[in-house]
Parts: sequence; C-alpha cells; structure tokens
Amino acid sequence: MTPFTITATDPGSRARAGILRTAHGDVPTPAFVPLATKATVKALEPHEVVALGYDMVLGNTYHLFLDPGHELIARFGGLHRFMGWNRPIITDSGGFQVFSMGHGTVADEIKRRPPGTATGGRERAGKVLAIEEDGVRFRSYIDGSEHELRPETSMAVQAALGSDVALVFDECTPFHVDRDYTARSTARTHRWLERCLTWHAEHGPPEQLVYGIVQGGVHEDLRVESAETVAASLCHGIAIGGSLGADKAQIYEVTGWATAVLGGRAEGKPRHLLGIGEIDDLIAGVELGIDTFDCAMPTRVGRHGMALVPDPDRRWRIDLGSARFRDSDEPIMEGCPCPACTAGHPRGYLRYLLKSRELTALRLLTVHNLAFVARLMADLRVAIAAGTLAQTARALREGAAPGLQPQTS
Amino acid sequence: MTPFTITATDPGSRARAGILRTAHGDVPTPAFVPLATKATVKALEPHEVVALGYDMVLGNTYHLFLDPGHELIARFGGLHRFMGWNRPIITDSGGFQVFSMGHGTVADEIKRRPPGTATGGRERAGKVLAIEEDGVRFRSYIDGSEHELRPETSMAVQAALGSDVALVFDECTPFHVDRDYTARSTARTHRWLERCLTWHAEHGPPEQLVYGIVQGGVHEDLRVESAETVAASLCHGIAIGGSLGADKAQIYEVTGWATAVLGGRAEGKPRHLLGIGEIDDLIAGVELGIDTFDCAMPTRVGRHGMALVPDPDRRWRIDLGSARFRDSDEPIMEGCPCPACTAGHPRGYLRYLLKSRELTALRLLTVHNLAFVARLMADLRVAIAAGTLAQTARALREGAAPGLQPQTS
Repeated sequence: MTPFTITATDPGSRARAGILRTAHGDVPTPAFVPLATKATVKALEPHEVVALGYDMVLGNTYHLFLDPGHELIARFGGLHRFMGWNRPIITDSGGFQVFSMGHGTVADEIKRRPPGTATGGRERAGKVLAIEEDGVRFRSYIDGSEHELRPETSMAVQAALGSDVALVFDECTPFHVDRDYTARSTARTHRWLERCLTWHAEHGPPEQLVYGIVQGGVHEDLRVESAETVAASLCHGIAIGGSLGADKAQIYEVTGWATAVLGGRAEGKPRHLLGIGEIDDLIAGVELGIDTFDCAMPTRVGRHGMALVPDPDRRWRIDLGSARFRDSDEPIMEGCPCPACTAGHPRGYLRYLLKSRELTALRLLTVHNLAFVARLMADLRVAIAAGTLAQTARALREGAAPGLQPQTS
Repeated sequence: MTPFTITATDPGSRARAGILRTAHGDVPTPAFVPLATKATVKALEPHEVVALGYDMVLGNTYHLFLDPGHELIARFGGLHRFMGWNRPIITDSGGFQVFSMGHGTVADEIKRRPPGTATGGRERAGKVLAIEEDGVRFRSYIDGSEHELRPETSMAVQAALGSDVALVFDECTPFHVDRDYTARSTARTHRWLERCLTWHAEHGPPEQLVYGIVQGGVHEDLRVESAETVAASLCHGIAIGGSLGADKAQIYEVTGWATAVLGGRAEGKPRHLLGIGEIDDLIAGVELGIDTFDCAMPTRVGRHGMALVPDPDRRWRIDLGSARFRDSDEPIMEGCPCPACTAGHPRGYLRYLLKSRELTALRLLTVHNLAFVARLMADLRVAIAAGTLAQTARALREGAAPGLQPQTS
C-alpha cells in the first residue's frame, strides 16, 4: 500500500495536499507535528492535543532511549500505549540530539541562535565521544554514562517504541564544518540509510514506515545528490535534515534544492522538514513541497510567555510577560477560537500568572499556540485544495489571522 | 437573608450538612475549598475546577495585595473577573501569611513540620517589622519593600477583590509563644474583629459575607472565650484559626473546644477551619461541626508527585515518583472515576513524567487529588443527610475509596 496519496497540487508552487496513511490512522497534509519529546506534549494530555487539531506527534528517540529506555516502553506495549496516544507517532533517529550535543551548535544554527546562547545548560553534559563508520558513541546528557547508537540500534529502538514513522540514523552535519567534511559525512549517512533499511526489512515492524534523511549541508551539489540517493532508496518517505542555512533565505533555498529533485519517481513519497516551524517557515515550506513539519517553537515559546499572533512584524509573537500588558483587558488574540482565548482570560491576567510562574499560564499559551499553528496548517490545506494557495499565503504573510478567513473546507 | 441553611444534622456528632449562599452561588457543605492563592488553582483552569466538583476557591489576600495589587484586580472588575471564576470566592485576611513569615513557624506548626523544614526559602524574605494595636508592618516576601496591613486595610483590600466571603484581620498566634502572649494577642484580635465589622458595615460590599476568626491558641479558656466573642459579634460566619496543636489529637481537641460553644444563637453561622485538610482531618473536622475547609494539601502534594489513595496506613498518599512504580501498569487508583485515572495513564508512565519534571504529570496529579477530596466531601454530605455518617466515616478511615460506595444522593 502506498502510504501517501496526493489529493491536490498547487499550480503556482510545489505545494501539495495529501493524506499520509499509517497504522494508527491518517494524517491530512500539509501538517504540523507537535513535539512529544519525553512521551508527552509538554503541559497537555493526549485528548487535548487531538482536540487542538493534531493527528500526529513526534517522540524523540534520543531522550526515550536514555530514559526511561525503549525496553521499558516496549514492556508497556510501545510508545502509543505508554503515553496514551492512539494516533500516528513519528520518531526521529536520535542522531540529531546526539550530534547537536557533540557539535554543540547544530540546533543553534538551525534556529539561527548566536553561539553560546543555545539549548540550555542541562543538555551540555552530553557529548559525542566518537563518530565512526559503525556508529556513534556518546555520553548521556542525564548522567554522563556512555552509550552507542548505530543505524541498527536506532532502528531497533524505534521498532521497540513502535512508532508509525521511523527516521533512519544520520549524521546531522553542522554549519561550521567544511565542504569536505560535509561530503564525507553525507556519504556515510547514505551508507547508514542502506543499513537502516536492511535492518528494518528483516526485523522492523511491517507496518512501520521508514523515512530516509537528506543531508548535504548548504552545498547544492551535495544536497541534490543526497536527495537523489534517498529518493532512489526503498524508504517510504523523505526527511530533510541538517543545517539548512544561516538565514531564512538560505534555508528556503537549500530546502528547495532538495524538493526540486524529489519529483518524478519519488513524487509520491511524503516529505518531512526536520525541526523547522516558524510561521513564515511553515508557509514557505509548504510552497516548497513539504508535507509535514516538526518544531519545538509553538510549545516552547508558549512556556516562555510568548503567544502567537497574526503579526509578521513581531515574528508572529508577543511576549505576554511584558509589563506593557499589566493592565490589558484584551484577550490573547482577538477573535481567536482557541480554548484559551474563548475562556476570556485577559492579557493582564496571563501576564500576572506568567510573572508568578503559574503552570496554568504555560498551559494556556501552549494551547493557544498549538491551536494557532493547527489553524494555519488547515488554511494551507484548504487553500491548496481550492487552488487559492497564492492568495492565502500572501494574506497569512501579511498578517491575516489563520482560520479566520472565510473559506470552503 | 441568612447566608447559611442547615439541611441535616448528624445525631452522633456535631456534623451538619447545609447550603452556604453567596452572591456568586450556593456551596453545599461540608465542602473543601481549593486554594487559588495567586488567582489560579495551580495548573488548572476555572472550568476544570468546577468539573472536579468544586463550588468555591480561596484567594490569598497577602499574595494578591503584594502582587498584582488589589487596585489592579479592581480595575479588571474584581477577582472573579480577573481570574475567570464566576462562583463563590473566599479570601483570607492576609494575617496568616504576614504572621507566618514573621514568626517563621506558624504554618509549620499547624502542619506539624519540624522547625526549619518549613514553607520554602523564598517566602523567608518576608518579615514582620512591628505588631501594634493599629496593625502590622511587614516586609514583602517578593522584594523586601515595606507594607502595612491594618484591620481596615485588610477589609478594604478584600472589598476591592470583591470576594464573596471575607475574613477579618487577626493575629495568627504561633505555638511557641506563652499563654500570656496568646491571651493578649487574642484580645487584640477581638478588637480588630470589631474594627473590621465596623469598616465593613460602612464601606464593604453589602453582598460580601464577613467571617470572624477564633484564636486562643491551645488554651481551652482562651479558645472558648474567643469562640464566644466571635459568635456574639455581627459576623456572618466563623473561622477557626491559629495554632491548633502539636498533633492531630490536640488539633481535634482544640477545634472541638471552639465548635462546642458555637451552638445556640451562633448555630446557624457557617464555620470554616483554616488551613486544615489532610484526609483524616477533614473527616474529623466534619464530625466536629466544621462546614468548610481550605488547605494546600491536595494540590501541593500532587505537584510533589503524591497521589491520594484510600490507604490510611500511608496517610492516604503514595509517592508516584518512587522507583518502585517504574514498571507499574496500574492506574493511579483502581476504580477512580477522575479524568486522570480514566485516561488510563499507568503509574509507570506518571513516574517517568514526574522524574522528567513534565508539567503534564503535575497537572494529572492535581486533578486526581482534587477529585479524590471532592468525592470524600460528597460522601460526607450524603452520609449526613442519610443519617449514616458514623458508618461512612468509619469506612473512609479504614480505607474505603471515596465516591465508590453505593449511596443515595
């Protein structure tokens, strides 16, 4: 069975709408995939994530491998049963987190953060000890204990977790390395791809889909070659990973190099863009032909007091912890139909709760932000089907509120 | 209008069931009142607190006075509108927190904690500067700034908050002071009672009920005199406060001294026991004739990973963070109808989330614990009405699960 059906394409871009079919149900695409890093979407329960409009979440193999361990999760019947989520789950390969801690700046570069501001102190205890043909040895960010992940290990862990979509083990090449390193790393990632597919064909759950990962850094020829290699493999879907560039223009350019060569025979394979999810990035990614996205942004910025609002001049976010909202009787976002906004909590109240570090505030902003992104993706899906993506994308880029335009569904 | 109607009394104890009528609705009693210290029940939204079976919450005047300030809350239309809770609210007078920081051990003694283990470092920045006939000067626990609360100020703050039940300003006498100090303090508290009632009669919201507070430490004659003084005043209801004793037996004895003299003309006044709320204390308090209780216990222990279970040998709680639950596929509590249990999350999953400090776990345990206490109180109300309190209280004390016995409602 083909796991992906394209139901509509946009004549003016590479965008497509479709349905990703998994053992735990369908995912209409393009879709955003919230993070459930440690077997939970932070601050929410599964039924709430569903109610917000999500069909799939992403669990992090690196974190779950180290704690509580895939064996324990397997004893509970797999990640779905462990976390009480009976819809599709995608797991990453663990490679991103292993390498981002070793190189120290991959996540920062992808997110364009200045060196040193980074992912927070705690994970810095983790460290790559050796990257070899066979795999990677590293220290746990939790207790410094030594572990190894090989392509086969990563697939075995993901098999134990029982995710619907597994990602192959790759080296997430950082931005600061030279072209030569990137070329050698990408070639090794391609060899790891074959090892992952071989392992999965023999041992993997038959219903689990496997996505290959396109690397190649910011070098067009390497990206194109990587995309062609992954497209020609027996993987069910294609993820685009690694460092995509120093700014948004480069990120879109590099992503475009990859999707440009994923047509033809690989056209029907679903495409996932790893770790990208700012509002404008989601719109651009859809236009470039991406089907699914995962990113910590909506949930993480929510826990830092940021609410998503239709304001491109403020990167679609306002800091509700700011003193200027002390007296504000306005809702988080005027007209927003999300549960946090319809409950009527004024910005001044949320500002007080945030200042007091009340959990209720972190939760309300998580809810609002995920609802905002869910409506954005729904708008894009509807627009592709209706042949109006150009207008919808323009309106959203100019600050139209997602989900609030009249539209046919 | 009498704010309280007794609908049933228990022949074997002082227990009574009733209805407390407030401007924002009725509260069937006996009832537990969850804390909304900083204008939110921690981790929950108002509609969730209602769904868990609660009609009234308690806001802390001390915290709200210091931050965000009663003026700001008044500009939002009062505490109900500020926090989105349109049911009854009781506010304390601020006295307890002011004094517990000054004396340093009031809360500890009421909770029978050893000296020095206490309320946590942060609030220790607060300090009583002077206790005088006119009122109390103290330093803010937030920034060390100097403030004053007088009986009139406390009532004015509570008037601005617009609570349904205001408590008069009292000195919460600690356990370590001598009888002479307690006698003088209690006499001053009685003078403050009159000043509060005078202020409220002239300036208070007409629909706001005012509860006097019985002090007197652990001295029978002082407690009796205080109860008689408060009962004879024009207050609408009566709260019992201060240090109640060194152990549970003494706490019940001291509480009983007070309620024994609250019959007669004061029989119809609702009685609130301040800051007490362990499971066995709630049962005993109801038998002693208490109508409402507030306590941080269910929500606070939940955030520390403790789940309430019908197990008197473990003080009705288990520590789900314990390693022994690592592999447990059991629910939090077998047969529990609360949303956290019916969602089916196994103890092993919650243990992992707690260990990972995931907000979702704090929330699930808050939900479970509040649901547990709500069912306990419902059982007691039903039993009083049915004339079966003795049997119900015995069963609950022996480990029967609240809400799970067959009963007529």
